[in-house]
Amino acid sequence: MSKNSSPIVALSDMTDGQDADLFALCVSREQLTTRDGKPYFKVAFRDAAREVSFPIWADSPHADACRDEWKPGEFYKIRAIYRDTNYGPQLDIRKIRPVAEADREDGFDPAMCLPSTRFDPEEMFAEMVGFAKDKIGDGALSDLVVDLLEINRAELLTMPAAKVNHHAFAGGLLEHTLSVVRTSDYLADKYDAYYPDLRPRLSKDLVIAGAILHDIGKLRELEQQPQGADYTAPGHLIGHILQGRDMVREAAVGRDLSADTLLRLEHIIVSHQRLPEWGSPKPPMTPEALLVHYADDMDAKYHMMAAVLRDGTSTGPITSQRNPLHQRLYRGEVDE
Amino acid sequence: MSKNSSPIVALSDMTDGQDADLFALCVSREQLTTRDGKPYFKVAFRDAAREVSFPIWADSPHADACRDEWKPGEFYKIRAIYRDTNYGPQLDIRKIRPVAEADREDGFDPAMCLPSTRFDPEEMFAEMVGFAKDKIGDGALSDLVVDLLEINRAELLTMPAAKVNHHAFAGGLLEHTLSVVRTSDYLADKYDAYYPDLRPRLSKDLVIAGAILHDIGKLRELEQQPQGADYTAPGHLIGHILQGRDMVREAAVGRDLSADTLLRLEHIIVSHQRLPEWGSPKPPMTPEALLVHYADDMDAKYHMMAAVLRDGTSTGPITSQRNPLHQRLYRGEVDE
Amino acid sequence: MSKNSSPIVALSDMTDGQDADLFALCVSREQLTTRDGKPYFKVAFRDAAREVSFPIWADSPHADACRDEWKPGEFYKIRAIYRDTNYGPQLDIRKIRPVAEADREDGFDPAMCLPSTRFDPEEMFAEMVGFAKDKIGDGALSDLVVDLLEINRAELLTMPAAKVNHHAFAGGLLEHTLSVVRTSDYLADKYDAYYPDLRPRLSKDLVIAGAILHDIGKLRELEQQPQGADYTAPGHLIGHILQGRDMVREAAVGRDLSADTLLRLEHIIVSHQRLPEWGSPKPPMTPEALLVHYADDMDAKYHMMAAVLRDGTSTGPITSQRNPLHQRLYRGEVDE
Amino acid sequence: MSKNSSPIVALSDMTDGQDADLFALCVSREQLTTRDGKPYFKVAFRDAAREVSFPIWADSPHADACRDEWKPGEFYKIRAIYRDTNYGPQLDIRKIRPVAEADREDGFDPAMCLPSTRFDPEEMFAEMVGFAKDKIGDGALSDLVVDLLEINRAELLTMPAAKVNHHAFAGGLLEHTLSVVRTSDYLADKYDAYYPDLRPRLSKDLVIAGAILHDIGKLRELEQQPQGADYTAPGHLIGHILQGRDMVREAAVGRDLSADTLLRLEHIIVSHQRLPEWGSPKPPMTPEALLVHYADDMDAKYHMMAAVLRDGTSTGPITSQRNPLHQRLYRGEVDE
Amino acid sequence: MSKNSSPIVALSDMTDGQDADLFALCVSREQLTTRDGKPYFKVAFRDAAREVSFPIWADSPHADACRDEWKPGEFYKIRAIYRDTNYGPQLDIRKIRPVAEADREDGFDPAMCLPSTRFDPEEMFAEMVGFAKDKIGDGALSDLVVDLLEINRAELLTMPAAKVNHHAFAGGLLEHTLSVVRTSDYLADKYDAYYPDLRPRLSKDLVIAGAILHDIGKLRELEQQPQGADYTAPGHLIGHILQGRDMVREAAVGRDLSADTLLRLEHIIVSHQRLPEWGSPKPPMTPEALLVHYADDMDAKYHMMAAVLRDGTSTGPITSQRNPLHQRLYRGEVDE
Amino acid sequence: MSKNSSPIVALSDMTDGQDADLFALCVSREQLTTRDGKPYFKVAFRDAAREVSFPIWADSPHADACRDEWKPGEFYKIRAIYRDTNYGPQLDIRKIRPVAEADREDGFDPAMCLPSTRFDPEEMFAEMVGFAKDKIGDGALSDLVVDLLEINRAELLTMPAAKVNHHAFAGGLLEHTLSVVRTSDYLADKYDAYYPDLRPRLSKDLVIAGAILHDIGKLRELEQQPQGADYTAPGHLIGHILQGRDMVREAAVGRDLSADTLLRLEHIIVSHQRLPEWGSPKPPMTPEALLVHYADDMDAKYHMMAAVLRDGTSTGPITSQRNPLHQRLYRGEVDE
Repeated sequence: MSKNSSPIVALSDMTDGQDADLFALCVSREQLTTRDGKPYFKVAFRDAAREVSFPIWADSPHADACRDEWKPGEFYKIRAIYRDTNYGPQLDIRKIRPVAEADREDGFDPAMCLPSTRFDPEEMFAEMVGFAKDKIGDGALSDLVVDLLEINRAELLTMPAAKVNHHAFAGGLLEHTLSVVRTSDYLADKYDAYYPDLRPRLSKDLVIAGAILHDIGKLRELEQQPQGADYTAPGHLIGHILQGRDMVREAAVGRDLSADTLLRLEHIIVSHQRLPEWGSPKPPMTPEALLVHYADDMDAKYHMMAAVLRDGTSTGPITSQRNPLHQRLYRGEVDE
Repeated sequence: MSKNSSPIVALSDMTDGQDADLFALCVSREQLTTRDGKPYFKVAFRDAAREVSFPIWADSPHADACRDEWKPGEFYKIRAIYRDTNYGPQLDIRKIRPVAEADREDGFDPAMCLPSTRFDPEEMFAEMVGFAKDKIGDGALSDLVVDLLEINRAELLTMPAAKVNHHAFAGGLLEHTLSVVRTSDYLADKYDAYYPDLRPRLSKDLVIAGAILHDIGKLRELEQQPQGADYTAPGHLIGHILQGRDMVREAAVGRDLSADTLLRLEHIIVSHQRLPEWGSPKPPMTPEALLVHYADDMDAKYHMMAAVLRDGTSTGPITSQRNPLHQRLYRGEVDE
Repeated sequence: MSKNSSPIVALSDMTDGQDADLFALCVSREQLTTRDGKPYFKVAFRDAAREVSFPIWADSPHADACRDEWKPGEFYKIRAIYRDTNYGPQLDIRKIRPVAEADREDGFDPAMCLPSTRFDPEEMFAEMVGFAKDKIGDGALSDLVVDLLEINRAELLTMPAAKVNHHAFAGGLLEHTLSVVRTSDYLADKYDAYYPDLRPRLSKDLVIAGAILHDIGKLRELEQQPQGADYTAPGHLIGHILQGRDMVREAAVGRDLSADTLLRLEHIIVSHQRLPEWGSPKPPMTPEALLVHYADDMDAKYHMMAAVLRDGTSTGPITSQRNPLHQRLYRGEVDE
Repeated sequence: MSKNSSPIVALSDMTDGQDADLFALCVSREQLTTRDGKPYFKVAFRDAAREVSFPIWADSPHADACRDEWKPGEFYKIRAIYRDTNYGPQLDIRKIRPVAEADREDGFDPAMCLPSTRFDPEEMFAEMVGFAKDKIGDGALSDLVVDLLEINRAELLTMPAAKVNHHAFAGGLLEHTLSVVRTSDYLADKYDAYYPDLRPRLSKDLVIAGAILHDIGKLRELEQQPQGADYTAPGHLIGHILQGRDMVREAAVGRDLSADTLLRLEHIIVSHQRLPEWGSPKPPMTPEALLVHYADDMDAKYHMMAAVLRDGTSTGPITSQRNPLHQRLYRGEVDE
Repeated sequence: MSKNSSPIVALSDMTDGQDADLFALCVSREQLTTRDGKPYFKVAFRDAAREVSFPIWADSPHADACRDEWKPGEFYKIRAIYRDTNYGPQLDIRKIRPVAEADREDGFDPAMCLPSTRFDPEEMFAEMVGFAKDKIGDGALSDLVVDLLEINRAELLTMPAAKVNHHAFAGGLLEHTLSVVRTSDYLADKYDAYYPDLRPRLSKDLVIAGAILHDIGKLRELEQQPQGADYTAPGHLIGHILQGRDMVREAAVGRDLSADTLLRLEHIIVSHQRLPEWGSPKPPMTPEALLVHYADDMDAKYHMMAAVLRDGTSTGPITSQRNPLHQRLYRGEVDE
Repeated sequence: MSKNSSPIVALSDMTDGQDADLFALCVSREQLTTRDGKPYFKVAFRDAAREVSFPIWADSPHADACRDEWKPGEFYKIRAIYRDTNYGPQLDIRKIRPVAEADREDGFDPAMCLPSTRFDPEEMFAEMVGFAKDKIGDGALSDLVVDLLEINRAELLTMPAAKVNHHAFAGGLLEHTLSVVRTSDYLADKYDAYYPDLRPRLSKDLVIAGAILHDIGKLRELEQQPQGADYTAPGHLIGHILQGRDMVREAAVGRDLSADTLLRLEHIIVSHQRLPEWGSPKPPMTPEALLVHYADDMDAKYHMMAAVLRDGTSTGPITSQRNPLHQRLYRGEVDE
């Protein structure tokens, strides 16, 4: 740590009035004018757990730098006094400069500015590979799934499951997918035992493979940027359902996978959102596709509901309906 | 067994050309006329696993009895030759009379003429009571659920889950409900572990109680008749969702149950079909209601899909769309 | 009246520049900041016919009291100059304190701050009871309806028909219900005369009872607060259609009411909004239910239309579509 | 009456086994073949209250005449034995010939073969004209309505309100329209008294005129044929809502009617079915249009419901849903 | 030009800092207040290709004139300095007065302040008349179309096709209609050649006449005002589809046009938007109506898409979905 | 031709009573029973322009062969008397045997039994290749399209465009596609000229390529069988929109095609049905995709309409609504 510096703390750990050095990501910079015509910039900085937003006025010593140099998506080292005001958390900036390579020695890490999964990505990835290796009996299918995971390992460790809505944080895709796999594992065992006379039998192999790969196309639909995930052009024009099927078809070339198995696996991906208006051109037409659809739909909806109840700012027993579920939820009386 | 009789066999065990005595339920008797004006009756008899349907012509020795005496919903002892014709299974009736009390000595049991669950109703009922006793920590709530089960024990052991569509056989309501309870038990544990910081915590008590009682109103919506379940007048005018909530409210009177717990339990029942057009005036607004909805919806749909694939008469890899799911299913090539 | 006071006037009677004492309800207090960062409070006060909304700046002599003491839902005695500005009606507050018990001597009455029905609630209530007594021939049914009215007399005299949308003022539920009863009375006579051969005959008893009770569940769905009605938790989770049926069922216990009559009455309540997406799990399946549905729907829609045409602020022959009907209305040229 | 004839009776008065002369309308003649290839004709005859349908076999003495001469839409004098069989009412034809002019002396009247309104068309017409004269204060508007009625008097006395669905019998349009006018009369008085401060006031003139003319376009949409009403080509391509407005606009030429009054009247006609998918390009945008819509909609739906309950062939407390309302109705237990 | 004046330039040609005289249309004047209570007016002026919007503060020398005299819809001669600021284009007004008659000598023309079609209205009109004369073989039909065009010539030369959405500029109705006619001309030839055995043959006459007249009712639905088109009262209450048919029916009186031809022409107009919810009470039921529908729908949608891609302010390869098509569009990378 | 034979004629050329030899395809053979229990087979044979359907009774000399040997999908040489009866065209079979290789000498050709396009497939194919070569300037794109056409030449010459609905005959896919290409060619030129300032310019290359390939996936979705086209398993589970995109992506591997061009081409295929419920997961987001969508939609709908008007069996000016468009059409009075 360079001498003379204030202590370096996390933005989200700062308390009212604290004067400190911190690393933060610039997430927005808008040029606005007050209703009476006075120009200013509204800027926002954040780390993984706190976002602050405040004005930079024309007469601020940082006005020129703000206009000409600050860029959303870049990281800054800031010396500032944090204030917890009635108008939300604010920074009174005293010094600011872009992060330099040397700052890593002082603890800077881009990941510290992104909200991310509560779970360990490496452990989740390992568990997912374990499912693919241990619970898919068909060797060719198991290999295909394992290879797809390994090839995309780096992105899977950090990709969100969505731009907004659900699991929109680093590692969110992995967290959501693993949860779907676990539920699918339970359901496959349960329903195979309930209907042992189904012909053909329910394929546990396909349920597990489909659960692992149902959202794999998000790796092509989205791209990660410092501020979070955003849609790629192919993501807009084609969509993750078709792109995920592409990844499976490309990976299947040259493998000893039966045509029927590949077709059924593609169908799970194609149909996993069930309704055309949700993006699936075909509804689930096999028992395996039906189970993966339910495991996925339930996990996304439950996550949204939990997030609204946990993070929502509205108080009182009933929430507003301005949330991803577009309906009110009941929290009841909570004593804390 | 009275002497001189043919051996008594089950209708569903008869083979082409076999001449035997059997017990069967008359399930329909329609007065029709051929396109060229010749009157006849079309009658149908069945036991639990086979239904036969054939004409009784005006010149049949049974014509008068058919017109004047045979009644759908009554049981008959029949001596007949069974024929497996190109036009489906038929009976060439030689003698027929209503079942008499004494026939029970020869093995007659009304239940032998009804399709019924593959599982043991008593065991399922016991498991359900076990859930209510062991997995609902709130004593007042556990007692309410157990009492509702015990009071309706007799009907629960035999009631179908629906008139048509899914689990439409004796014990079907119990089979379906137990399956929903098991899935709900898994999901409650899983999602409580995933979101331990939810306030209030997910209530396993409510999930289990809601799962057990979600369809309890079918005991008032439907009534059992020899031919199967049919809607009661209140079932038509009010519906099982409201009627099930009535049963819970009536049972709650005088118990030491908190108002909030009762309200949340009622809400699970009211919202379990999620959409207004499916009968739920409110969508799931609590995590508990969301889980019970998914466990229920998935079990009904999976059962329909399995039944189509298992029983459907269409051959080839793709089924027709004339089934309760109103869509085609993929069976693929099945070698048997 | 205490000496030295200004004259006490109604807020809604004040004229531009008038300096007077008044009683008013605080209906909102929001902490805001101007776009350039200056904090202030925006407060609103009202009596039955006028609402004023204005800022309290940090340098106001009332700033501390506003922040620490003023509360929405409480009544205040205010000395102020009223100004009718281009920015809406405003109060220049000189003195302000919470209403005290003694103020009632000076004419304070909480009801003076609530918009309310144009009709006399006692007269309306008496007319409604008269319908129940005179036009319901079945004694048990007549008694049930009269008792339900009498038991809920206090709340019925003041409850709005809704939080927003239609008849959202004190006594609005009574005003709306009485209008529905009158129309239903006309329609029952008319259509019974048109179709005298209906079997069973149209039941005037049920039409009147159903009309009186169709919205009775709003007494449980809503609760009155100084600022108006708001939903209760059971109102959100269950809804007035089910709650109204509960009230009827609870009131019916121990009465000599035929099961069929009770069922038909419950059905009128359950089906009165006709469509699932409007809250009715069942559509009207009896002539009585159909008539009550139309009388109700028409009264609500006509009230909305009249309110938009009468109160809407838009000028010109065509209104905007931002109103509870979500469509434009035609006012035409009005010369006044 | 010519000598030697059997007594002439109404088809709908005949009893089982009765041999008589009757007049009947041939309503259909289809050339069919039994499933095993035997050709025959199925013919139907009716009078106002009974329809009989039976086969004419190739070996019938009437086979040639049936094939070559009998025509749907023509009237016949028939000597036949009526039989009330299990296969419905039938005629055993002994003689048959087209009705001749001289048969009118024996009581033949084409109207006797058409179902028709229970009310006296002349009285209904007179009442309608009375409404137009007495309850429309604006002289020009009153004249327009009266003239439109008088010009179309002959057709109005006999036109059905629809090809199928509701009031599909002679005079049905008049019966339905008069009922709508009466309800509209009541509603206009009621709601004008409720909202006397509406600006402009509710126009009773427009409500009455709109109610009388709302369906006037059916005179162009439909044309009467002996078997009932059928759509004209303009009826199919344009529809009665636009055609009714045409009739009003054509009749308004040269009258001293204000442009705003004419516009509001046209709008009532254009919007009276409320929804685009029911044929109205615009929703009711005036209070007058709203009232006429409700009076009309309610009368049509009530008529359908009454017809199903009265005439429906299904027995038991609940009807089937194969009726114009596409839903089940509750009849309950009816003892007769 | 009067001496001493600055040069007169077009507002849309001014550059940053330029001081000049200009003519402009006042398009809005709103009385607002800053969040902290300071009153001001926000005014907007425009010519055909640029709109400027800026505040007039209470202390401005123009404050009184702004409040008392400036009116949206009137034209002004302004001396001002144009500034291209970060807050959009602004005018620093030095002098302003309403346009006077004499200003026409200096080049003032109201049309200079309206966006208008890129094409020459006279040429387009002539081409349209040419279509009507040359490509409609039926003389009576050709005359009717030509007469309708000539009678409405003045309005057609300037009317927009809509208030917003598509072709919302002077001459837009003509531009859109001519494009529809050209496409219809191509399609009629093509499909008549493809299906020469259609009976009756596809009528080129009707396709051309229908294409020319499909939107003619907009001349009654809309009225031109200086700021653009707005709906008339009949436009709101009846709509251009019915009004266009009126114009054709009125013009057809006394002509030697066959009833079937007129009916088919009316039907093209009535059905050209295809869906009830888009305003067409009937769908296209003839080949001619189908072709005109497609030619129209495609032209409107293509124009919207082109306008979004050309004028939309969003940058980057994907547009936002806030546009008349309510969906995102793909622009891709454009290098300019 | 072998001696002693009857003359060989086409089934569709036979006249009532004619006795001849013919070649025909067996298209169905159903085992039925008359309502009174008599078993028989209903068989159908056809050539390209006529289908005959008739019973084979148990006592027919062909009964055994019919049951044991005749197979739908196989061709037969038949000696029979053709009868044009009231019950449709029938064959009185005298001799029948499967077609043998030698029959080709007598003129047998399987194609003679299939309805097929009125146009010459080779000419259409050549014109399509011409479009791909001459109107696609981008060499890599032109090559890709030409290669895809050439590789699939054999199937394209004969594939129908659908199993039912539109262009469901041999060569129908080619006929439909060529028509779409021609219209797209016109529209691309027209709209590029209308909006020359679009950035990027409308790509004629992409419009032509997209039009040619929009339905190419039908080659994988459908498979040809003697009786017509039927869905493959991948067709059911994945669908032609995704499969067509696969074909393009597979063909693009290793070519020098820009990523943006390929993406835009894929998007045209993906979006060409516009709505999710019609199978397109994304709506047209580029001008090129919009034009191809309209050219395609219009051609399919026009073909359906022409087919109903030309082939429909209903007479009179209005058709029934039992046709692929699910609506009535207007034919008017046709004199022939």
